[in-house]
Amino acid sequence: MNIISNPQQMQEMSTQLKKDQVTIGFVPTMGYLHEGHRALLKAAREQNDVVIMSVFVNPLQFGPNEDLESYPRDFEHDKQVAIEEGVDYLFHPSVEEMYPEPMSVTVKVERRTNCLCGRSRPGHFDGVATVLTKLFHLVQPTNVYFGKKDAQQVAVVDGLIENFHFPINLVAVNTVREEDGLAKSSRNIRLTPTERQEAGILYKSLSIARAELIKGTDNLEILQKRVIELIERESSGKVDYFEILTYPQLENVKPLTGEIIIAIAVQFSKARLIDNIIFKL
Amino acid sequence: MNIISNPQQMQEMSTQLKKDQVTIGFVPTMGYLHEGHRALLKAAREQNDVVIMSVFVNPLQFGPNEDLESYPRDFEHDKQVAIEEGVDYLFHPSVEEMYPEPMSVTVKVERRTNCLCGRSRPGHFDGVATVLTKLFHLVQPTNVYFGKKDAQQVAVVDGLIENFHFPINLVAVNTVREEDGLAKSSRNIRLTPTERQEAGILYKSLSIARAELIKGTDNLEILQKRVIELIERESSGKVDYFEILTYPQLENVKPLTGEIIIAIAVQFSKARLIDNIIFKL
Repeated sequence: MNIISNPQQMQEMSTQLKKDQVTIGFVPTMGYLHEGHRALLKAAREQNDVVIMSVFVNPLQFGPNEDLESYPRDFEHDKQVAIEEGVDYLFHPSVEEMYPEPMSVTVKVERRTNCLCGRSRPGHFDGVATVLTKLFHLVQPTNVYFGKKDAQQVAVVDGLIENFHFPINLVAVNTVREEDGLAKSSRNIRLTPTERQEAGILYKSLSIARAELIKGTDNLEILQKRVIELIERESSGKVDYFEILTYPQLENVKPLTGEIIIAIAVQFSKARLIDNIIFKL
Repeated sequence: MNIISNPQQMQEMSTQLKKDQVTIGFVPTMGYLHEGHRALLKAAREQNDVVIMSVFVNPLQFGPNEDLESYPRDFEHDKQVAIEEGVDYLFHPSVEEMYPEPMSVTVKVERRTNCLCGRSRPGHFDGVATVLTKLFHLVQPTNVYFGKKDAQQVAVVDGLIENFHFPINLVAVNTVREEDGLAKSSRNIRLTPTERQEAGILYKSLSIARAELIKGTDNLEILQKRVIELIERESSGKVDYFEILTYPQLENVKPLTGEIIIAIAVQFSKARLIDNIIFKL
């Protein structure tokens, strides 16, 4: 496996790969890799000639009160995972290499952000879209991989690729789940044993809501109220949001048809869990 | 010459050209082509295997009080110029094809805009950078051509390409001038015969200021005042701005060294003329 830290060198390498007409699968990450990332890497490995993964904790997507400094990092572990999953190039630039001077242009995300997690993180998706625009040009991928667990991120990247005509195919990889349906996440270890037992209710409640919508329920307010009551009765978690929106536009329109997302965030004592289901109505 | 109006078809064509490893020279325009455009096309024709020109009046870069509707258009003439200058592909999309729905992402220009013409056109360069980001992905050029006459636009595009790592080489083409130094422009026909005689003073004043700076003048305020007085004494024009800045950062720093731009805008009765000189100090 090649490790590259210099952006220009990364671009020269990807330009050469494009000349050789190989397909490039790209998995952008902030490192501290877990099973979710492994699922993305496996999909990339299956579907492309060459796999490139980036590990870069992007300061632009952290708010002033967010945990940039304390964000977990373990590059040795990430390197090991990359080797195990068959990554060909690991791109690991420093902040100084990615942002040698203040940016004179940035990407502004105008839609798909004022809902779900975006509501409480102003500017977060601007930072995500800006660094991805840089990374997409440095890596020049054929296919780029994101996890459906962070569905809002997938929706924003979909808009970025579509509106700016990036010649890149977006692959949204299914969420990996435990046996009780709980979405795998590095945050799950922060659940108490009791909370862990209760946490299956997130996916169960999403499934119930989906079944109701498919059956034809059109009073979303009542459905939302019932589901929130169910979760708060069956667990000690507190529901932060439970939203039913079009996908990937993330709009609150009636009547609901086409691709739909039901998304949820629940705060437990030390962990805030998110999950979602995307399906056709 | 091929005329393409569909963005997807344009991208498929440029993808094929990239596969064939030909160099692509791109001249983005809003049409109504004049001699300045011809200079860009000639440079592109000399330096590339294939030349692509776009003709697209981009609504995003017009302010609410600006002349989008009355902006001059003459596609038959543009087509003729394109053929004469050896353009291979003329990309001419409709507004509906470029913006089928409201953009969920746009480019925001954070620097290099709050000076010169940018000061009086808030949002203008956001619109320019946004449409260029789209066009760059559709056309996938090796080299892109802009005229130095609109030096602020060149500076913004330089930031766009540099900060986002577009794998594109920016070529800034020298301003074409009349015998008395007046920069060629389609606006010159709006000058009265007397104003036309006076208008050589723009380039003359830029040249005087450059000579003074090279001689070592460091009191920019006095230099600016003298030049403005000269222009307003020798012509009926009114100076809108006369600025001396670093290039391409467009910053007002002292002491001035490196690449420098002296830029001017003068309002005549029916025409506002701009001009600039870029040189090393």
